[in-house]
Amino acid sequence: MRDINELQVIIQKAVEKIQFPAHPSKLYEPIAYILDMGGKRMRPALLLMACDLFDGDIEKAIPPALAIEVFHNFTLMHDDIMDNAPLRRGRATVHERWNSNTAILSGDVMLIEGYKLIMQVEDHLLRTILNIFNDTAVGVCEGQQLDMEFEDRADVSIPEYIEMIRLKTAVVLGGALKIGALVGGADMRDADLLLEFGENLGLAFQLQDDILDVYGDPKKFGKQVGGDILSNKKTYLLIKALELTEGAAKDDLNNWLSAAKFDSANKVAAVTEIYNTVDVRHHAESAMQFYAEKAFAALDSLGIAKDKKDYLRNFADSLMVREN
Amino acid sequence: MRDINELQVIIQKAVEKIQFPAHPSKLYEPIAYILDMGGKRMRPALLLMACDLFDGDIEKAIPPALAIEVFHNFTLMHDDIMDNAPLRRGRATVHERWNSNTAILSGDVMLIEGYKLIMQVEDHLLRTILNIFNDTAVGVCEGQQLDMEFEDRADVSIPEYIEMIRLKTAVVLGGALKIGALVGGADMRDADLLLEFGENLGLAFQLQDDILDVYGDPKKFGKQVGGDILSNKKTYLLIKALELTEGAAKDDLNNWLSAAKFDSANKVAAVTEIYNTVDVRHHAESAMQFYAEKAFAALDSLGIAKDKKDYLRNFADSLMVREN
Repeated sequence: MRDINELQVIIQKAVEKIQFPAHPSKLYEPIAYILDMGGKRMRPALLLMACDLFDGDIEKAIPPALAIEVFHNFTLMHDDIMDNAPLRRGRATVHERWNSNTAILSGDVMLIEGYKLIMQVEDHLLRTILNIFNDTAVGVCEGQQLDMEFEDRADVSIPEYIEMIRLKTAVVLGGALKIGALVGGADMRDADLLLEFGENLGLAFQLQDDILDVYGDPKKFGKQVGGDILSNKKTYLLIKALELTEGAAKDDLNNWLSAAKFDSANKVAAVTEIYNTVDVRHHAESAMQFYAEKAFAALDSLGIAKDKKDYLRNFADSLMVREN
Repeated sequence: MRDINELQVIIQKAVEKIQFPAHPSKLYEPIAYILDMGGKRMRPALLLMACDLFDGDIEKAIPPALAIEVFHNFTLMHDDIMDNAPLRRGRATVHERWNSNTAILSGDVMLIEGYKLIMQVEDHLLRTILNIFNDTAVGVCEGQQLDMEFEDRADVSIPEYIEMIRLKTAVVLGGALKIGALVGGADMRDADLLLEFGENLGLAFQLQDDILDVYGDPKKFGKQVGGDILSNKKTYLLIKALELTEGAAKDDLNNWLSAAKFDSANKVAAVTEIYNTVDVRHHAESAMQFYAEKAFAALDSLGIAKDKKDYLRNFADSLMVREN
């Protein structure tokens, strides 16, 4: 098995080699710009890993892996417009550096370029893999729609939240793994198990992110602690806290949510204190554990050698214990 | 050969039957809304006609025809945001009725739905037809980009303008005809000739539109005469007039282009008068004729019976003589 870091390097080099037309430059430059922002290339690397797991030819997995990465960056380009985000990884977002129209149209072309890349799989896999890619793409759009709708809703339930993060972030991991497995020669049963592994691991990751936003060590986490609290983001923790608090504590929480003016440190401290009183961290960690175990159960059922399962399990574990 | 009107009815019924998921409703309602606005369904009808031309099974051509129609409406949904257009066919545009974010995201899903529809062709045609669909889709985006850039440029040349309208409007007609021909059993030579027919006919149509905007009978044309003049739209006529005028006439034209305040009827009359002095109508009609003849030459080379060629030629002629 190749190391994930090695796979990330392979993807990074392949991303740098993607050629887009020179004209119209305003259409294609933003694509190179956003792809150049970097990132961990985790989704395409996982696709390569899934291929490698079945002793497949990594070279054949590179175009679909790039398709996943280009698709992912298309969603970032359009999401940044919708979220009105000025920065991504410390650099101006495309709609800020150019304008919204450019970000819309360059994003549209990126989605088409994603299809051109995914189509480079062999004929016998073409229809199957395109169907997975379509399902993944539709899922991400549905997830983004739900995420936007949740901003204006006070009554989002935990199952609704789980479904939203499944669509918005987990299906791409699942889809990438399934596509990689098929390119690597896996049968449909194993490919579906890897999809299940990926989706559940994706859910566990997102729940971990929700927890780390509040309880993470800022040095290790790399983001501002409490960012979700300050933006009233409907995370697992907030939704669970709204569900569990009663009386004065619930009023208190709602007051912080509706407060127009506040001291940031005070708000983070006060909301965290409310979270602590109803022990939302424990609930979130249980949920995270639940999805991690579902992921590992799918992994156990795979028809591959034990040392490969152990490798995948250790890799997933290494992602899950960044903090706690 | 089935009549084009019959084919348009088939498409209209098929469009009405497309089922999108019920949830998230805000994601899928705008898709049904824009498809329900109607239109002549000319692109998908031409796809069916191309299939019929080779005695193909029209039923098999319906999903790719719907793909072209869904794709076309996706471009309208995103173009309307970019053009800041409040109305389409007398109804509020999607970004006006909902908001820009909804129009961006619903448009994205439409593009994916287009791929799901185009994929319903038979296995042996799948890769070929997807490649045509990709080329068409990229072309339209490039055309829209050029169109937006031309708004801010004073030095657009006639060849640049032709390339822009080829990409923005003609490649879809060409692509639709080529796909329909292949589904109908045509060989690649005939399919390519139909693409050439469609692209050149598309160019001729667009030039006719440019002419009718100025010289059309408002009763027959169905649009406000002089709309392009009032909005300083860089049409063939304006670009040619900027090329041909000199001295006082050129200054006069540029003054009208830069005038912030003006009486609409005066501007239309004055610019039309300048157009007349350098005879741009004649130039535009010659260009239109040039592309129409290229279209008919491609048609003549097709390996189909003479009565079918005559049918297509008569159909194209009927579209070309709405006015003059």
